[in-house]
Amino acid sequence: MKQVNVGLLGCGTVGSGVARILIHNRELIQSRLGAVLNLKYVADSDPRAGRSIAFGKGVFIPDAFQVVDDPDIDIVVEMIGGQGIARKLILRAIENGKQVVTANKALLAHHGNALFEAAMKKGVDLAYEASVGGCMPIIKTLRESLVGNRIHSMIGILNGTCNYILSKITREGTDFKSALADAQARGYAEADPTLDIEGMDTAHKLAIIVSLAYGIKINYDDIYIEGISRITPMDIAFAREFGYTIKLLAIGKKKGDRIEARVHPTMIPSGNLLSNVNGSLNAVTVSGDAVGNILLYGHGAGMMPTGSAVVGDIVDIARNLIHGSIGRIPLLCCQPDQIRQIPIMPIDELETNYYFRFAAMDSPGVLSKIAGILGGQGISIQSVHQKGRKSNGSVPIVMLTHQARESGVRQAMAEIQRLDVVTDEPMLIRIEETNSEA
Amino acid sequence: MKQVNVGLLGCGTVGSGVARILIHNRELIQSRLGAVLNLKYVADSDPRAGRSIAFGKGVFIPDAFQVVDDPDIDIVVEMIGGQGIARKLILRAIENGKQVVTANKALLAHHGNALFEAAMKKGVDLAYEASVGGCMPIIKTLRESLVGNRIHSMIGILNGTCNYILSKITREGTDFKSALADAQARGYAEADPTLDIEGMDTAHKLAIIVSLAYGIKINYDDIYIEGISRITPMDIAFAREFGYTIKLLAIGKKKGDRIEARVHPTMIPSGNLLSNVNGSLNAVTVSGDAVGNILLYGHGAGMMPTGSAVVGDIVDIARNLIHGSIGRIPLLCCQPDQIRQIPIMPIDELETNYYFRFAAMDSPGVLSKIAGILGGQGISIQSVHQKGRKSNGSVPIVMLTHQARESGVRQAMAEIQRLDVVTDEPMLIRIEETNSEA
Repeated sequence: MKQVNVGLLGCGTVGSGVARILIHNRELIQSRLGAVLNLKYVADSDPRAGRSIAFGKGVFIPDAFQVVDDPDIDIVVEMIGGQGIARKLILRAIENGKQVVTANKALLAHHGNALFEAAMKKGVDLAYEASVGGCMPIIKTLRESLVGNRIHSMIGILNGTCNYILSKITREGTDFKSALADAQARGYAEADPTLDIEGMDTAHKLAIIVSLAYGIKINYDDIYIEGISRITPMDIAFAREFGYTIKLLAIGKKKGDRIEARVHPTMIPSGNLLSNVNGSLNAVTVSGDAVGNILLYGHGAGMMPTGSAVVGDIVDIARNLIHGSIGRIPLLCCQPDQIRQIPIMPIDELETNYYFRFAAMDSPGVLSKIAGILGGQGISIQSVHQKGRKSNGSVPIVMLTHQARESGVRQAMAEIQRLDVVTDEPMLIRIEETNSEA
Repeated sequence: MKQVNVGLLGCGTVGSGVARILIHNRELIQSRLGAVLNLKYVADSDPRAGRSIAFGKGVFIPDAFQVVDDPDIDIVVEMIGGQGIARKLILRAIENGKQVVTANKALLAHHGNALFEAAMKKGVDLAYEASVGGCMPIIKTLRESLVGNRIHSMIGILNGTCNYILSKITREGTDFKSALADAQARGYAEADPTLDIEGMDTAHKLAIIVSLAYGIKINYDDIYIEGISRITPMDIAFAREFGYTIKLLAIGKKKGDRIEARVHPTMIPSGNLLSNVNGSLNAVTVSGDAVGNILLYGHGAGMMPTGSAVVGDIVDIARNLIHGSIGRIPLLCCQPDQIRQIPIMPIDELETNYYFRFAAMDSPGVLSKIAGILGGQGISIQSVHQKGRKSNGSVPIVMLTHQARESGVRQAMAEIQRLDVVTDEPMLIRIEETNSEA
């Protein structure tokens, strides 16, 4: 029976998940693949990293470079993370003609174009299903299942930390800080949670799927990013009154030849399936011209779910090795010579519905001043809600708008903030009137 | 640029969807595939079938055999349906060394083993993503993405007709007959709806995915099947009171070396995502040892969604043709020599929770008689609800049980039905206490 040699770099959370699956389900995988997937090396500089797994003699080694330089290794699985040593190791593996699997979204978002180019030049596969949405097969679905579709939009909950925090505030009315502390205590948020809660991790993932869906180079830098740290229980309560739920969404859309790619807290109708995705779970809806709407849902992170996606990639590549079909699917969905340079639309040009919350003095004329400024920017108000929930001497004025343009909204917000009667920075949350069916 | 020639058999609903996608998105598909997908023939004996599509000269022909016998045709796409001519054409195509794509679940459920064997012998691919769940990539997910997983269970809403009818009864309280008539008027149900509403169509699909998940031959005959025609608005109202929703579910499970495969109306907790899948939509959750739970959701039928899945298969096979990797993935997930003969567990051996509804005279002692019979079969009652909703001189007595064995339940039902005080056939609905997270 044929054998494919796998070298694993990094035996942290996801790396050890991959090792466990390859070891525990070895015979099952063999019965499906028709070949032996041999985990030849697991490299980690921390000798404690692999202690809980019963590796054979000589499998666990400290030096990752020994793995990428070993002529017997067919597939290198990078599970180190970060953009430093991981990048060097992947490039060296490619140079050595190895196939590569990674789950490293930050690396792909920032250096993916160079890595994919190197892989294409060398004629090796570089697989990355686990980089977006953990175990959900969103990469395979976009590159393969939906290959006949023009993708209209992708709307995803792609960060479990943020979804856990927002779900907790929604369910229990706690404030952001305690929800974050709870997420940290449960291991859903890291000690420094910035990448997650400020939306960068979500944007890394969005950069990848936007590239696949629309046949453009990975463009992380032009994605508009806004995190969840300013969301209050009050906003969530207002949202509920209006029939909305607040989620941190990754939104990718194509309208004509314009591509939207943005990450921000968003109000979506409570009947929408995405609004019922709670806790640390992830989900993404994809809308295409033939498929209509589909939704994928599952664990976006974690040792075993992410490991499952990585093993799927390893087997995919092993099949290509066995059948001589490396390069069978273009790395970024489109054939390399078909990848286009279409800029991402600046957020100023966005047109959508908005929720505004102003903290204002409870005095006559306030509403007229605010409405006047909004009117001056051509922003048409759908409804106004002024309720006696006084806090710090001011009352909240909440407005929902008809479709408005972001540039005008921003100018209006700046003007309104300068009003004497407005006591705090205005809150702005975009509304996504998603299709009712998904 | 390379060219792959496609021949389409049948230009009905799905067939014309496939043709539309291949024609309208021709350049897009080409930019992803790196080759031309040439729709050389569309065969339909009804000359009106393709009238709404602008086929090139000589593409639309009456004779399907001309397609499967044409030496230029690489991929035959069978969209005729049924088990007669479709089977003959597929076998002839295989004999002629063509690759085959089909969406024909009835054919695969009944004759799949022979068809797959013929394809393996000849060394051709036979793809069938569209046969289960329309556009949801459940086949690809099971065969590829979850290849590293032991599958614990699959629970799916796989028939849009039934889901539409049950959703309508749930929402509007209409009875089954009017809900069915409405589904027929809207084109969600056929003139003869038996295959759908009696659960056979769902079972066809379950037979396929159970085979993939558990590495066994397709075994439709041993699947327990119960349809939705006896479900009343009263049962749905009771279910809601207890926090459940009634769905027609396809359930595949593995416990040790026993495989469950059954189709029946089922109560699931209303918080479960599946319970929020309404109208003609489909969804399936898959639970695996690594992946945890994932859910796929989308249109389970319809011209364009099903067409999308068929085109995904066509492109997959075209890639195999271009890269010389036909047979890259075993047709039934496992390598042919690894496929096992494990029987499907008889329904009598099922152990689950049950909902019973009895129509009984409103007289003293009734409850004690019924409870006595249940107790005699070792069925432990969790709660009893006897409400004054008199209809036809009898009152409904509703019971929820703890886990009980189906064989005992059936004996008890037969005994209870023979009681003088029981005025109608008892209603039995199985309860699935699904994992709360999916």
